Amino acid sequence: MDNQGRIQLAVIGAGYWGPNLVRNFTASGAAVVTHLCDLDLARANKVAAPYPAIQTTTDLDAVLASPIDAVAIATPVRTHFPLAKKALLAGKHVLVEKPLAWSVAEGEELVALAAAKGLVLMCDHTFCYTGAVRKMRELVRSGEIGEVLYFDSVRVNLGLIQSDVNVLWDLAPHDLSILDYVLPDDLRPIAVSAQGVDAVGTGFASVAYLTLHFARPVIANVHANWLSPVKVRTTLLGGTKKMIVWDDNEPSEKIRIYDKGIDIGDEDPNRVRVSYRHGACNIPVLEPTEALARMAREFCLSISEGRAPETDGHAGLRVLRALAAANRSLEAAGARVELD
Amino acid sequence: MDNQGRIQLAVIGAGYWGPNLVRNFTASGAAVVTHLCDLDLARANKVAAPYPAIQTTTDLDAVLASPIDAVAIATPVRTHFPLAKKALLAGKHVLVEKPLAWSVAEGEELVALAAAKGLVLMCDHTFCYTGAVRKMRELVRSGEIGEVLYFDSVRVNLGLIQSDVNVLWDLAPHDLSILDYVLPDDLRPIAVSAQGVDAVGTGFASVAYLTLHFARPVIANVHANWLSPVKVRTTLLGGTKKMIVWDDNEPSEKIRIYDKGIDIGDEDPNRVRVSYRHGACNIPVLEPTEALARMAREFCLSISEGRAPETDGHAGLRVLRALAAANRSLEAAGARVELD
Amino acid sequence: MDNQGRIQLAVIGAGYWGPNLVRNFTASGAAVVTHLCDLDLARANKVAAPYPAIQTTTDLDAVLASPIDAVAIATPVRTHFPLAKKALLAGKHVLVEKPLAWSVAEGEELVALAAAKGLVLMCDHTFCYTGAVRKMRELVRSGEIGEVLYFDSVRVNLGLIQSDVNVLWDLAPHDLSILDYVLPDDLRPIAVSAQGVDAVGTGFASVAYLTLHFARPVIANVHANWLSPVKVRTTLLGGTKKMIVWDDNEPSEKIRIYDKGIDIGDEDPNRVRVSYRHGACNIPVLEPTEALARMAREFCLSISEGRAPETDGHAGLRVLRALAAANRSLEAAGARVELD
Amino acid sequence: MDNQGRIQLAVIGAGYWGPNLVRNFTASGAAVVTHLCDLDLARANKVAAPYPAIQTTTDLDAVLASPIDAVAIATPVRTHFPLAKKALLAGKHVLVEKPLAWSVAEGEELVALAAAKGLVLMCDHTFCYTGAVRKMRELVRSGEIGEVLYFDSVRVNLGLIQSDVNVLWDLAPHDLSILDYVLPDDLRPIAVSAQGVDAVGTGFASVAYLTLHFARPVIANVHANWLSPVKVRTTLLGGTKKMIVWDDNEPSEKIRIYDKGIDIGDEDPNRVRVSYRHGACNIPVLEPTEALARMAREFCLSISEGRAPETDGHAGLRVLRALAAANRSLEAAGARVELD
Repeated sequence: MDNQGRIQLAVIGAGYWGPNLVRNFTASGAAVVTHLCDLDLARANKVAAPYPAIQTTTDLDAVLASPIDAVAIATPVRTHFPLAKKALLAGKHVLVEKPLAWSVAEGEELVALAAAKGLVLMCDHTFCYTGAVRKMRELVRSGEIGEVLYFDSVRVNLGLIQSDVNVLWDLAPHDLSILDYVLPDDLRPIAVSAQGVDAVGTGFASVAYLTLHFARPVIANVHANWLSPVKVRTTLLGGTKKMIVWDDNEPSEKIRIYDKGIDIGDEDPNRVRVSYRHGACNIPVLEPTEALARMAREFCLSISEGRAPETDGHAGLRVLRALAAANRSLEAAGARVELD
Repeated sequence: MDNQGRIQLAVIGAGYWGPNLVRNFTASGAAVVTHLCDLDLARANKVAAPYPAIQTTTDLDAVLASPIDAVAIATPVRTHFPLAKKALLAGKHVLVEKPLAWSVAEGEELVALAAAKGLVLMCDHTFCYTGAVRKMRELVRSGEIGEVLYFDSVRVNLGLIQSDVNVLWDLAPHDLSILDYVLPDDLRPIAVSAQGVDAVGTGFASVAYLTLHFARPVIANVHANWLSPVKVRTTLLGGTKKMIVWDDNEPSEKIRIYDKGIDIGDEDPNRVRVSYRHGACNIPVLEPTEALARMAREFCLSISEGRAPETDGHAGLRVLRALAAANRSLEAAGARVELD
Repeated sequence: MDNQGRIQLAVIGAGYWGPNLVRNFTASGAAVVTHLCDLDLARANKVAAPYPAIQTTTDLDAVLASPIDAVAIATPVRTHFPLAKKALLAGKHVLVEKPLAWSVAEGEELVALAAAKGLVLMCDHTFCYTGAVRKMRELVRSGEIGEVLYFDSVRVNLGLIQSDVNVLWDLAPHDLSILDYVLPDDLRPIAVSAQGVDAVGTGFASVAYLTLHFARPVIANVHANWLSPVKVRTTLLGGTKKMIVWDDNEPSEKIRIYDKGIDIGDEDPNRVRVSYRHGACNIPVLEPTEALARMAREFCLSISEGRAPETDGHAGLRVLRALAAANRSLEAAGARVELD
Repeated sequence: MDNQGRIQLAVIGAGYWGPNLVRNFTASGAAVVTHLCDLDLARANKVAAPYPAIQTTTDLDAVLASPIDAVAIATPVRTHFPLAKKALLAGKHVLVEKPLAWSVAEGEELVALAAAKGLVLMCDHTFCYTGAVRKMRELVRSGEIGEVLYFDSVRVNLGLIQSDVNVLWDLAPHDLSILDYVLPDDLRPIAVSAQGVDAVGTGFASVAYLTLHFARPVIANVHANWLSPVKVRTTLLGGTKKMIVWDDNEPSEKIRIYDKGIDIGDEDPNRVRVSYRHGACNIPVLEPTEALARMAREFCLSISEGRAPETDGHAGLRVLRALAAANRSLEAAGARVELD
């Protein structure tokens, strides 16, 4: 940290996401971006132009040898592991874009290494820092919606078809990280099933459905689709007391909380008695802070306060485990795959 | 038929759906409703009040002994088979509410019996007679949307939880019959997987996902849910040339046809080249006729013209087979179940 | 009344609206429809078929000579006055479809006559009996939304162009009656301005804007349009504390109450200090009863309780005065026309 | 121009809009921003930071004395006239933010001066450079929608209440410039009426309605409102052949073209015969270029090609005349005010 208590940070990767990290960490006031490192120096220079204090470089070793506190890694997924490992070994705190790593084994090694070195390892699950998701977490964890019954997410659009992963790997990390963040700690998926089709012949599913199973009668499902003519970002989260509809396409009224549901009488053991509640709906005001700004601040605070961040390596690893299991289920014609 | 060529028809069942049948067959001009038969005579009398010519009765045998041409059965599902069988044996053409029967064996027997007797057996897949579904069939079967890639239907609302069937049995027949009607004859599901949860303790799944698999790289999925705070009725149907969004909640602009999609280049065998089309969207005018009126007319015409109706017993049986397979998949923790 | 205290009622007019009155008064249990009177007896017979107890006739004099309590008039507007006058003179309570009469003078005569005879004169302002409008009245009159600032209604669609009235006469009575019902008694319009155009050459405006002015700084506006490709039914009602959006096209979530607004500081007399409130939004559950059923009950209750109904002749007359003033404004190139 | 044919441009004003002009002119490739001039040098320096080639200054005279070709003025409205006049007198082409000037007299002087000096005077009517408005212009001017019948715009939200102008002055310039751009040259408003209310006591109307009258049976209306809890940006444009709905809140499907309307028979001079068309709806793909980029390019091109730009001083002056007339109408209780 500098003498104002600000984290000294290097950003690795000046591609799509790196500039956002540079901008938000700089604006946070809690960090100083000292280096921007990319194999393409011209690209790094362009991104760093408005920030005269940022040094651009292609030499990661030199960066890690400098007295910085932390690195933020925004490079292709396959490089997450070697870069993060190197940084941790150099004693730096690490923020990694999602997903944490390319394999569960890699993810486990990173988590173990960070623990052994007493360093912060955080995964940039950006959605967990949006006002909408934080409100959902609050509603779920405070018990306001009662017991969770189901979670259903539709995340479809005419997407950039990727040539090396399936659509779940591309889109479902969002939902998996949201679920991990929103659901109570004692409600974790125990198995997954995935159905999908390689509709355009890339060798990977471009339309897929991921189901998460739990030890309790709860179900979660994600519909991920690169071939939808319309963009849908709608999540239903049903509880015994209240139900939430989150439409992320809405510019401001993203979350609706319905006082609707079903009451089950239990007087008569031989028959279920169901009654319906049709109460009012509330659209709360959400925290307006930009998610990425909040995420950047959380990374800095977790370092300075010596604590785990909200979306730490363990969370990243849980997401990775579900993704890996989904791949195995797809390969096994949709069969259920247990999570450890 | 009477001397004006109108079908003489008895309606069996004066509950929820029966009155609609009475009204639509009467209004069709192609049939005369001669009897309304129900075990509860008072109920039958109430329904028949505006139609002085309709005889009400509790005596089905007498009805079947009369010189009517056909019966329309709108009774609880478990009674479909005995009633339809009796009517066929009595030489009457039969219309049955969906689903065709309680078991595949029953359905097969009805189909075989109708064939043997040379009688029309039709299943009331009402949605297949809506302007929206007919437009989709036309778009698919004419080749206008190209090859079908996927079909996704969300059919959720705060529903009447039923105590003797799961939510798929209640809601998915709509989607299964629509799929059966819309897809080309050479594109039939070959297997199903179903995931679900008994969220409210009725002993049956109240939230479920049904996936249909095909011999070609096509996928179909239905999300059926009795516990959603909002009513959603949205279907996506993607083709290689065009894509359709059907929102049945829209009062008039139900169908949108997007000239959007993905073009796949095949020059280079080692890599997939994808390009995107972002063309215009068209909202067609749909046939305004009420679906039930069209369905009633089709039943009458198929009898008078001596041909199979659009949603015949075979269609009803295909829907039933998929439902039965879904139940087996639910019982087998979501494992894939082949259809024959 | 009969010996069960039910109002004996004759319905005059078996056209578009009459059958709805027959059905709702019958279902209300508070009235018995004894006669259905129409110059076209065949039409009356068809409407009355399901109600064996209703006598159909073309002879209004005979109806009025019978010991009925009340008549409900659902005939063309130009006949409202002579029919209602005749019925009042015969000592019958009268319900009239909106608008009350063809001219203000006629309306005034009916109101005076009913008062002189001690009879109920009610105008069927159906919207005032919907859950949405009743909720708005409650929110306004309880002071929950604070002081009313403005009311804006858009009522447009591809409508049935009428050949003898302008679009305001056709559509604005809804908004005028709603305003009359919702606003506090001490907030009545004092003047109107109307702008319009005869876009299709019928001799009457088919697109028009009606502005209502008040003694306080409040404004109300209605956009009435027969030439819109889409149906819009949206009303904004702004108050100092809360603001309401009513979208009548929404199947269930018709009313939204926003805790949004502007707070005006008054410390400094030389400058206005404005701050914004961006609070939550609430979507209340509305009373589900059908509006027409509630209207029918109110007519019966006002008779049996000897009190003025909610939408009495005075309310009908106020609507009529605004309509007549709107016509004068249209003829005067949109000039402001005072009421009274 | 520089040796690459690029316009040498100074931007005056580094407040809200200036940075957008700097960014877009720079990105256009058709201009080089040489100076950024603001009385607050620190603000100018901050805006210019990412552009090392831009000179910041508070000295407008020095800027105008330099060999630049043009200035873009993004300062408070009251300063438009003196700044633009000075620049024109110095022989510079001028782009001014809307509205052109504070008074019609000022606007006329600028237009005359530019003409006398042979310089480009352009008003930044940004909306005229959006894909949506350009599509509407094309549909109207090609005759595809037939004769224009009406134009209706709702532009409401919880806005920044301004203390020195009314809501029409703030919001209606958008609609007036759009109308000016979209309507055929032979269809110009000849008079205006404006109704409004000073609902929050600022001394100026915060809710207002502006009606434009034409020599033909056409009407245009703008609802401008700073006190709406929801943001609405919806325009209806009705023609004899087709009708357009433009919803600017829609992220991509902004324009819908309805093949709906009314056909008027003229066989019988004594009665209007109306029939309805309910054809399909088309949602076209719109040009994706950012409006401001297109505007910047048009300014540069008009200079280098020696021609009038699309939204020239005359267009700015027409908008200004309508605004000034609206103010006079508001002061005269909504009376119609002729436009010259």
